[in-house]
Amino acid sequence: MLRDPESQAHLQARIGPVAKLLDRIELVEGISHRQSPTRAELVDALTHRQMLAEVSRRLGALPAGDVAHLMETLRPDRRVIAWEQLSPEAAGKVLWELSPPISATLVEETPRDRLVTIARALDADGLAHVARWLPADVLGDVRAALEPRTRAWLAEQAAFPEDSAGRLMSHEFVVVESGETIRQVFKRLRRPPGLPDQTDTLYVVDERDRLVGAVRLQVMIRHPLRTRVEEIADRGIVTFRPDEEARTVALAFERYDLASAPVLDERGRLVGQLTFDELVHYSREQADRAALRRAGLRGDEDLLGSIWLGARQRWLWLGVNLATAFLASRVIGAFEGSIARLVALATLMPIVASIGGNTGNQTATLFIRGLALQQLNTSNLALVAAKELSIALLNGVMWGSVLGLVTLLLYGSVGLGAVMAAATALNLLVAAIVGMGVPVVMHKVGRDPALGSSVLLTFTTDSMGFFIFLGLATLVLLR
Amino acid sequence: MLRDPESQAHLQARIGPVAKLLDRIELVEGISHRQSPTRAELVDALTHRQMLAEVSRRLGALPAGDVAHLMETLRPDRRVIAWEQLSPEAAGKVLWELSPPISATLVEETPRDRLVTIARALDADGLAHVARWLPADVLGDVRAALEPRTRAWLAEQAAFPEDSAGRLMSHEFVVVESGETIRQVFKRLRRPPGLPDQTDTLYVVDERDRLVGAVRLQVMIRHPLRTRVEEIADRGIVTFRPDEEARTVALAFERYDLASAPVLDERGRLVGQLTFDELVHYSREQADRAALRRAGLRGDEDLLGSIWLGARQRWLWLGVNLATAFLASRVIGAFEGSIARLVALATLMPIVASIGGNTGNQTATLFIRGLALQQLNTSNLALVAAKELSIALLNGVMWGSVLGLVTLLLYGSVGLGAVMAAATALNLLVAAIVGMGVPVVMHKVGRDPALGSSVLLTFTTDSMGFFIFLGLATLVLLR
Repeated sequence: MLRDPESQAHLQARIGPVAKLLDRIELVEGISHRQSPTRAELVDALTHRQMLAEVSRRLGALPAGDVAHLMETLRPDRRVIAWEQLSPEAAGKVLWELSPPISATLVEETPRDRLVTIARALDADGLAHVARWLPADVLGDVRAALEPRTRAWLAEQAAFPEDSAGRLMSHEFVVVESGETIRQVFKRLRRPPGLPDQTDTLYVVDERDRLVGAVRLQVMIRHPLRTRVEEIADRGIVTFRPDEEARTVALAFERYDLASAPVLDERGRLVGQLTFDELVHYSREQADRAALRRAGLRGDEDLLGSIWLGARQRWLWLGVNLATAFLASRVIGAFEGSIARLVALATLMPIVASIGGNTGNQTATLFIRGLALQQLNTSNLALVAAKELSIALLNGVMWGSVLGLVTLLLYGSVGLGAVMAAATALNLLVAAIVGMGVPVVMHKVGRDPALGSSVLLTFTTDSMGFFIFLGLATLVLLR
Repeated sequence: MLRDPESQAHLQARIGPVAKLLDRIELVEGISHRQSPTRAELVDALTHRQMLAEVSRRLGALPAGDVAHLMETLRPDRRVIAWEQLSPEAAGKVLWELSPPISATLVEETPRDRLVTIARALDADGLAHVARWLPADVLGDVRAALEPRTRAWLAEQAAFPEDSAGRLMSHEFVVVESGETIRQVFKRLRRPPGLPDQTDTLYVVDERDRLVGAVRLQVMIRHPLRTRVEEIADRGIVTFRPDEEARTVALAFERYDLASAPVLDERGRLVGQLTFDELVHYSREQADRAALRRAGLRGDEDLLGSIWLGARQRWLWLGVNLATAFLASRVIGAFEGSIARLVALATLMPIVASIGGNTGNQTATLFIRGLALQQLNTSNLALVAAKELSIALLNGVMWGSVLGLVTLLLYGSVGLGAVMAAATALNLLVAAIVGMGVPVVMHKVGRDPALGSSVLLTFTTDSMGFFIFLGLATLVLLR
């Protein structure tokens, strides 16, 4: 019998009952630990134990990906109950799949002994993956029990900078010598561990351990068993250095539709393998974190986490935004005299600021994307910038005229209409310049252009919008 | 010799010279077609032809992914020159890789005959992929030349809704019968086409063509050649229906680290195969489009496209934003009397609106992400909503007090400070409610929660911010 076809409904059918069970468990929790319990309490305690056993049984039947997904949707206290019912092997795999804030809190709540057991159940790649969550002493204990070669590899891997190919690479790959025949290779692959899960590629090395090429299983089965692998090795494969940025690696994997690729040191020796699934995870995690951080969230916000933590995580951003909003409002404060004489200015000024923010955001979005996809470069930057400025001018004149006309109709003042039109057009230009400048400068200084752009942008378009509009009005209408 | 390790620098080293060459070609273009040319013009024309030949030679040596990346960074007129120098085979592959707006414009500029040649050079999957760009008559011509089975498959595939598994699936997969032995299967795989590029998995079907399981090459080579494939088939594999949403498929591929998966019809018969590379492309394209559309761009903006088109594509959004900004400003208009009496109100009101917009955006971002990752569901929605409201209340009271105090210090009015504090706290609550409500409602009615959220959100927090602040001030301070 095959599994049901994968869908959101079937996923819910698998994990929903466990979630319900965990819901009910909460009701009887706490009773089982009392002293001198009554008969009813004893029955409750028994039920409680039976329910926990049932949870454990059901979780054991689910793939790690399902358990991780379930845990992401549970409230923290029930997450811990589910987590405690997992076997060490399952717990290790689930820890690997969970999002960072949840992994971190679960590890905090786990006794040291169990952490050691969980970590020992992982292979070297799994250990490399969850290492950032584990306390140093737990990690030390687990590493000490590893064989020296694996330990050395782990230390080497951990030394590469975060977000590099070296950090994402796996040491599970199969190496064959260029002189070996297909028969010899097949004989070796029949013994465990065989080929790692996400690849069908073997790497061919020369006598000095330098990579010569790669050969795929499906190519090998097409040739006579006596063929030497060097004869059929593909030498045109894409390779990476361990210090390459993970972002560049992910783009290259997508550009060349790679399933896996070798990582080589400066002497051309194989030090690891990258596989598509690691890069998909990486890209997803990055995109996710970037989206949260753009909105001023810390990037590791747990949807179901504590209120206090959630509130505190937003303070910095709120504070920064308040400060910039306050600064922008001081521009208005400087023109209070003008507003007192012509109160319509107060009504109209937010429109100028708002349309500037919107167009600036459009330009910034295009530039952030162009930089992320490496499509914007020194040779076409001037051209693209000229285009954006032209668009801003065109739209500024057009929509400025519309707004000017509406203002004229509303307030019956040609002067006010003209000021509105001119201020709108000017602020659109300012917005385009800032919308291009901020991402490009952030990129040049090595920061993520997506972060911080919005604060700076809103601040500039707001305060410049107020300044241009109120300034023009004061000059033209109120002298 | 292996290729250089992949990096942004090496990519530039490969494509940079072609870009430079294309730059220079532009200068002599147009001369070669003149009547009665002078000797100098003839020399220019010869140079021109030689340069084109050089471009063609260099492009021919690059992988399709590199050519596509190069073309994305070129200005439109040079893109066309590069496009014309590609062989039909290469052009087909490049068309497959290019982003939608660029594919569309290139196809528009290509003569019908060449389009037919290009499309004929593609396999069925490639054709399915680029079909949306081709004019109906070209597509008809190419389809007519296909063998009936492929034609039928293409028609079937095109009938599935956009963004479904059926649209993304490939018909390049290998089927074996459950009774076949490994020896028989290997014999068959030795003949072309063998296994498709991104998979090492064969599907095992029974006598009624229903899927029984899957078997991987690396498992087959471990067993004696006389073994029947049904004995070693994995029956627990993840499968999909063709009408499953591509978004759900992509999440499942990531959750279970899949490289490929079969697509089955209601009777359990194999109709196609999904591979990770298609899903990575799909996810990237979706994320990219969503980011652009959130900023009010059409989602198929060409960074180097025409100014006129770029300007026009932003009109709708600018218009909508102007309309909402104008509506919000009418709220201020209704309080012009109050502002005339206390001009400080004009200075302070944008702060209340701005902080509301920021916190609303934080809440909306969390909800949009929770919905996209299917982490928010009916069972935890109330809990998460209560958390968000509590955070809004907590932050509202805290930052409201800060703002109230600053106002008191600035204007020396306890009343104005109190109004500022209360309005800030209230608007943060409104922002949280709208920031949760809009994405959830959009999701319920089947729209993308990320789209439109920001317009509605800004409109509400702006107009409510103005209304609450000016209304409270009028009630408390100016009666």
